[in-house]
Amino acid sequence: MSKLFVVGTGPGDLQLLAPKAASAIQVSSDLVAYGLYLDLLGQICEGKTHHDLPLGEEIGRARLALDLAASGKTTALISSGDIGIYAMATLVFELLDQQLSGKEQHPEWLDVEIEVVPGISAMQAGASRVGALLGHDFCTISLSNLLTPWETIEKRIQSAGQGDFVVSFYNPVSRKRDWQLNTARDILLEYRPTSTPVLIGRQLTREDEEITIITLDQLDAKDVDMFTLVSVGNSESRHIVNGSKEWVYTPRGYSKKL
Amino acid sequence: MSKLFVVGTGPGDLQLLAPKAASAIQVSSDLVAYGLYLDLLGQICEGKTHHDLPLGEEIGRARLALDLAASGKTTALISSGDIGIYAMATLVFELLDQQLSGKEQHPEWLDVEIEVVPGISAMQAGASRVGALLGHDFCTISLSNLLTPWETIEKRIQSAGQGDFVVSFYNPVSRKRDWQLNTARDILLEYRPTSTPVLIGRQLTREDEEITIITLDQLDAKDVDMFTLVSVGNSESRHIVNGSKEWVYTPRGYSKKL
Repeated sequence: MSKLFVVGTGPGDLQLLAPKAASAIQVSSDLVAYGLYLDLLGQICEGKTHHDLPLGEEIGRARLALDLAASGKTTALISSGDIGIYAMATLVFELLDQQLSGKEQHPEWLDVEIEVVPGISAMQAGASRVGALLGHDFCTISLSNLLTPWETIEKRIQSAGQGDFVVSFYNPVSRKRDWQLNTARDILLEYRPTSTPVLIGRQLTREDEEITIITLDQLDAKDVDMFTLVSVGNSESRHIVNGSKEWVYTPRGYSKKL
Repeated sequence: MSKLFVVGTGPGDLQLLAPKAASAIQVSSDLVAYGLYLDLLGQICEGKTHHDLPLGEEIGRARLALDLAASGKTTALISSGDIGIYAMATLVFELLDQQLSGKEQHPEWLDVEIEVVPGISAMQAGASRVGALLGHDFCTISLSNLLTPWETIEKRIQSAGQGDFVVSFYNPVSRKRDWQLNTARDILLEYRPTSTPVLIGRQLTREDEEITIITLDQLDAKDVDMFTLVSVGNSESRHIVNGSKEWVYTPRGYSKKL
């Protein structure tokens, strides 16, 4: 058998790791992942061969995973969050597509049985920690313009504003990118109030989790790093305070019926 | 203690139920949910008091859950999928908001400790079963115009088209609503090719799962029911066939670097 599991391990808290993801890792002999993810997983990963490639080596990691599986080793390619959302799964299929189109020379990849295991994504972890920010129509936009032209990203932010979607920004900043988030904020401010609630969620569900609820006009890239999710409410999202607890939710419109 | 867990149980397969969700149910004495969801969960729910209200009784279910928890019973309010996405979580906070605004007469609700546990949503289950359909920017739109005016929904579909988002339609049809999905298809066809791949996922990850990949021009409400998720690729999504297997993925743009 030649098997590749493509596994999302959720936001960090092992209590949010699906049993199916844990099983996939358990039956694999070889794990391909950024080292930090494996550290978070702890003992599930013990006794297996780890193939750690640095961040930025995404293509290399997908190739390696296909090569290992094709060589007969049951392999798990691992990302945190949902591996299908801004993560490694799409690269595996992009490589298969290249092979099917004759642009790669790895016919052995086509014999690998692939199973994708989804996971809970950062936007869901964030929304749950503050209430129900994703309670109505929402979108996700990656602010990384390494692979997507900025014009495309900007058009999507405009569309998200026009459509009044709750917006979760993935890859909001990086060491080399810091202006995109503030530009995104300014675009959304054309469409929704300055008081729109915004979730800043850093290291969500992990030991050093930090959650802040601010308003859209307060959003600033200097308060955000690459371990942070930024979710912006729509024009109807509400920030409510009950004593020492605060919540953000996006209504579906039931209040007209309450 | 007065505790309410607001729990998403994932798409159906118990292997995708997070341990945190299972624990929340285990420590609860009272479960509030649509009966079908509890049937799917099986023995985890045994020995607990079930409060089953019919579909459509969403407000009643949220009120009941708050009342039970306020009365001192550790309670779990349960939806399949992610309870924060088009589900019950937002209603709980909407009710709390009403109480804080003086429009409800239930001050005891404000003493309830609330914990939201996210789950894997249908769009993620669907994307994983066919590859990586959510590999780049995406949005979700509910086609139910019971609570949201159709003009708002139509504007969002237009925006999704303009922004070239992958679009997942929740509540695509119901017994009384059948025209919205075909209208949505026609709007998206203004922006993306007739050949755009579409996933029709019925009873995802459950015993009677049915998955079909079609093209956007083939999408028809008559082939869809209320247990179905419809996800439409963006203009770059690819449907590839490898022998007896077929996959759909949305590239992030790595191929320029391959």
